[in-house]
Amino acid sequence: MDATVLSLVLDLSGVFVFALAGALAAVRARFDVIGLVVVAMVSSIGGGLVRDVILGTEPPLALRDWRYLAVPTAAAALAWWLHPRLSRLRRSVRVADAFGLGFFSVSGTATALAAGLAAPQACLLGVLTGVGGGVIRDVLLREVPLVLSDGQFYAVAALAGAVGVAVAWELEVYGLLAATAGVALVVVLRLATLGLRWRLPVPADQRRRSPG
Amino acid sequence: MDATVLSLVLDLSGVFVFALAGALAAVRARFDVIGLVVVAMVSSIGGGLVRDVILGTEPPLALRDWRYLAVPTAAAALAWWLHPRLSRLRRSVRVADAFGLGFFSVSGTATALAAGLAAPQACLLGVLTGVGGGVIRDVLLREVPLVLSDGQFYAVAALAGAVGVAVAWELEVYGLLAATAGVALVVVLRLATLGLRWRLPVPADQRRRSPG
Amino acid sequence: MDATVLSLVLDLSGVFVFALAGALAAVRARFDVIGLVVVAMVSSIGGGLVRDVILGTEPPLALRDWRYLAVPTAAAALAWWLHPRLSRLRRSVRVADAFGLGFFSVSGTATALAAGLAAPQACLLGVLTGVGGGVIRDVLLREVPLVLSDGQFYAVAALAGAVGVAVAWELEVYGLLAATAGVALVVVLRLATLGLRWRLPVPADQRRRSPG
Repeated sequence: MDATVLSLVLDLSGVFVFALAGALAAVRARFDVIGLVVVAMVSSIGGGLVRDVILGTEPPLALRDWRYLAVPTAAAALAWWLHPRLSRLRRSVRVADAFGLGFFSVSGTATALAAGLAAPQACLLGVLTGVGGGVIRDVLLREVPLVLSDGQFYAVAALAGAVGVAVAWELEVYGLLAATAGVALVVVLRLATLGLRWRLPVPADQRRRSPG
Repeated sequence: MDATVLSLVLDLSGVFVFALAGALAAVRARFDVIGLVVVAMVSSIGGGLVRDVILGTEPPLALRDWRYLAVPTAAAALAWWLHPRLSRLRRSVRVADAFGLGFFSVSGTATALAAGLAAPQACLLGVLTGVGGGVIRDVLLREVPLVLSDGQFYAVAALAGAVGVAVAWELEVYGLLAATAGVALVVVLRLATLGLRWRLPVPADQRRRSPG
Repeated sequence: MDATVLSLVLDLSGVFVFALAGALAAVRARFDVIGLVVVAMVSSIGGGLVRDVILGTEPPLALRDWRYLAVPTAAAALAWWLHPRLSRLRRSVRVADAFGLGFFSVSGTATALAAGLAAPQACLLGVLTGVGGGVIRDVLLREVPLVLSDGQFYAVAALAGAVGVAVAWELEVYGLLAATAGVALVVVLRLATLGLRWRLPVPADQRRRSPG
């Protein structure tokens, strides 16, 4: 399996996992069958689509390769039939989601660097690729975006992977090995902080801080 | 009236109808005059704008032709003065909305095919052109997007028209006749399923499905 | 200080003020540290980013100059540490926000005119640059966008500045002087209508209007 095929397989795995998580959220919100498919697509290809539009890669990758539409549709069908069982697989879904986050933020950062962006901007777009689909999903489901408010190390894990990619790129050692290390970094950070129940700081209560 | 003029007239009719429906929703939400105009514009040109940005058609059509701004403004003014009477025209508005949906999904699909997209992606963009403005409107009004959750054959009708256009395109018979047939298909499907109270399936209740 | 430097300083001041207002809103919504930074960025560079994507300027300005990321990050840090004191500066923040609105709508309109858009469309994009970031912020915070519903002369002030720029452009006298006058017009209109408690009209109550 050469690098391009590996990259595609990993990317589509990310799409599948994110689509599944999105479709399950749509089932919980009692959306209809169309809503399921739309939320599955938005959750999985939304982040990359926004990235491609910002970079001026038009039409976006997700609209040039039919598999980027077929995989979310299949994930929505799975969620439709198996949602009672899948809800029990919360743990496995979470692990899979961490891998999706890892691959998306790594590939998103690399795509932005290849398009000529400087490292900080490329990291931002990488994180956006990883978390963007989820934010759009939360907005459609009329929920406050979790990634902005629940205090988990989600965007931070994605950022760590993105910075790793940018450093490897600067050192001119970016390749399959560095990409794998970046994905692993995101997955380990995400799952470790989840297991250890680490929390991001929230601003101090206004009353406590005010003098006197 | 040649084909281009007809196409423009139909497109602007779609803009007008969608703008009117959006402005009436903004009146109900007690938005101010600016809110009315903005929601009218977003509802009517939002879907096509997103499509053009994704396709890389910049600036988007709606920003190159002044009529695409004048028509929603006029619709907002109408809604402002006549909303008590218009609310009684619920039935007529619904029929007009079905035509808007038909024309937007047909012209959106054709635009995407002409830009070189494959059939499935072009159909997706066609449906997006038809329903996108309404989704943005619902998000601004802080409502769960109706098209995703109310179980009506709205996006399905748009999809049927889009598939019809794609088939005609493949067979190299796309033209005024095929476009008209596509619009008619959407309108009939939309109004018939509305009249017959057909409902899209919603995922089965989790408790019922879980074994034991 | 030449015109380019002045323009950059004014633009970054707008970014700073909008980022600060966004971060304070995120503090009130009890978002975590990531949420603070994201909302600060979205509020400050979101409007310009949407404008650049619509105009096809890719990558957008905000992703080509590192200061457009550094300034919102600094504003988020300030809001983090000083929010109890900043909340008392409501008046100063409001004045600063008016300047941000002025500069963004003037520079947005000029950018769109320079990209070849006609005057009405350029004014629309100018207003979008000024108010767009705030709308995205409100959607993320799950609030009805204030600019559409609270009846204040916010978008109207931005529109006045945009029209001023477009007129100066048509007369071929657009330059530093006209830009400054445009910003001043927005600031004065915004603060005067705020001080005088002017309100935009809201559609008449449906019951009152209906005949009989």
